[in-house]
Amino acid sequence: MADPALCAAVVKANGYGLGAVPVARALAAGGCRMFFVATLDEGIGLRQAIGEGSEIAVLNGPFARTAAEFLAHGLIPVLNHPGQIEEWTGQGTGHPAILHVDTGMARLGLTAREFAALIDNPPPPIPWRAVISHLACADDPGHPLNESQRARFTAAAARLPGIAASLSASSGIFLGPAYRFDLVRAGAALYGVNPVPGRPNPLRQIVRLTAKILQIREIDSGESVGYGAAHVMAGPGLVATVAVGYADGWLRSLSRRGCGYVGGVRVPLLGRVSMDLATFDVSAVDPAQARPGATVELLGPHYGVDDAAADAGTIGYEILTALGARHHRVYHEPATTNPPE
Amino acid sequence: MADPALCAAVVKANGYGLGAVPVARALAAGGCRMFFVATLDEGIGLRQAIGEGSEIAVLNGPFARTAAEFLAHGLIPVLNHPGQIEEWTGQGTGHPAILHVDTGMARLGLTAREFAALIDNPPPPIPWRAVISHLACADDPGHPLNESQRARFTAAAARLPGIAASLSASSGIFLGPAYRFDLVRAGAALYGVNPVPGRPNPLRQIVRLTAKILQIREIDSGESVGYGAAHVMAGPGLVATVAVGYADGWLRSLSRRGCGYVGGVRVPLLGRVSMDLATFDVSAVDPAQARPGATVELLGPHYGVDDAAADAGTIGYEILTALGARHHRVYHEPATTNPPE
Repeated sequence: MADPALCAAVVKANGYGLGAVPVARALAAGGCRMFFVATLDEGIGLRQAIGEGSEIAVLNGPFARTAAEFLAHGLIPVLNHPGQIEEWTGQGTGHPAILHVDTGMARLGLTAREFAALIDNPPPPIPWRAVISHLACADDPGHPLNESQRARFTAAAARLPGIAASLSASSGIFLGPAYRFDLVRAGAALYGVNPVPGRPNPLRQIVRLTAKILQIREIDSGESVGYGAAHVMAGPGLVATVAVGYADGWLRSLSRRGCGYVGGVRVPLLGRVSMDLATFDVSAVDPAQARPGATVELLGPHYGVDDAAADAGTIGYEILTALGARHHRVYHEPATTNPPE
Repeated sequence: MADPALCAAVVKANGYGLGAVPVARALAAGGCRMFFVATLDEGIGLRQAIGEGSEIAVLNGPFARTAAEFLAHGLIPVLNHPGQIEEWTGQGTGHPAILHVDTGMARLGLTAREFAALIDNPPPPIPWRAVISHLACADDPGHPLNESQRARFTAAAARLPGIAASLSASSGIFLGPAYRFDLVRAGAALYGVNPVPGRPNPLRQIVRLTAKILQIREIDSGESVGYGAAHVMAGPGLVATVAVGYADGWLRSLSRRGCGYVGGVRVPLLGRVSMDLATFDVSAVDPAQARPGATVELLGPHYGVDDAAADAGTIGYEILTALGARHHRVYHEPATTNPPE
């Protein structure tokens, strides 16, 4: 989709919760040569893990007195405001950086006034690796801010001829060729999150999350389950208590709304998600499959990252970044990314 | 509050997000000799960190073929169902374990029928370290399930004379002496979460969370801020972009509702929380204090764990367990637990 723009990989937030190091190594093996992280710490960790062969850009840029660390680890800072430009040029000239101009997100990046001042009175020369901006409403193709940000960015990039221009992250790529410029910064789309909410996901689901059943319990009609006695059984049934909870990032806002799958059968989440446990109604499942030690599929082909997000009242990005440290992360070669049920 | 019951410390979920190892070491130095974790992995990690001097109990108990690992690491399993009892006695007799009887939570623990069968036909002798149960509605003192669980537990414990009985976790301790039995299992209360929701918190706030301001931006009236152009400024103002986001556990459900404090002044969260960033209205703050590199207090004396939970539509427990790996955790000696502003 990005072609002919260069596609950089965003692996901040520990590779969207999936493990920045194995994700970046797999992408590097696939030809990716440019990575974006959010913080200096993330940049240092990634540099140590993947060696010198790739560019690593740090979106938050330097705080005061940290520019030397960027240089020591071969990191490219994104410079978001005049103070960061000053911090960077204080390290001498000739060190590449990325310039961030704001075009309507109002979060990070030079304001129009600051950008005009930079063009009129350039700082000591910085070899700009790229000029970037960020869309506020890329997941809403009809939003008028998209076109106005694109126009502002086109005008800004024209003031820096010969510098690679980059406006779009995952959803922006899908707004069409006019949004792709020279470089795109794919994050969520790499991990299968739907970049076009409300329309069918053009990407494959790549994350599968399972948890083990600890106990199966026969519940009588009228008995309550879990904290606050929040769920009362309408009839007798079988309840599976599963070793996953909100401390694992199985968000508490999924309570009463989420679900899992056992042997391809939907099992509704019952009551409230606990810190380390959740309960599912497995009455409809073959008892040979719903037994202690068996697994419940929490994310996968039947119930994807965006499905869980909808039930939790959030976005797929948060479902991924919330995935906790107690999950064992197992990486499959591409041919087995979606293991059979 | 627990006196004369023994008080065990619950340090599962990485010590409720705060760091199980330093938390357990501090509690051990203060005299705590019994710890509860949720999983075998957590038990192994804690044993390696704190040595042999304390008991470590594992709430989830063994899965098939993991009992030997409990023995190897000196862990006491909580046995929640007949299959786990069988797994444990398969390792031979004489190994201590904790028996969990369900009294109305319907999540883990022997059912009344299973418990009666155990008493009538005892398995090979297990030196029971304790018999425990768990309250479903302890945070709601008026809920009738509390008294019925207490009565059922009293009756069950009477069938195991001489064995330490434990019903209450943090909120249960505050239901009164009748709920304390021989052993209590304090978790959230150790970390300052209010154990009596709706009433003043009798505990001190012990967690302070700060994040750094990356950029200060002058916003004109009518300009939008952040994703989805979700916040539109009613008048001109100053917005601080801060290096904290939902990937740090600053839950996305805080969007438009949360706040921070700068120099003791409340700064409302504006628009949506991003993955790595959040924006705050700092128009009311002395500009000398609202500058890049300065800190915003996100949890602390002004805005505690329970305040953030209320704004996020969750409970303080999740605010703590969500705290992400990018935060630098700094531990203070008791005298400086609440550093002055």
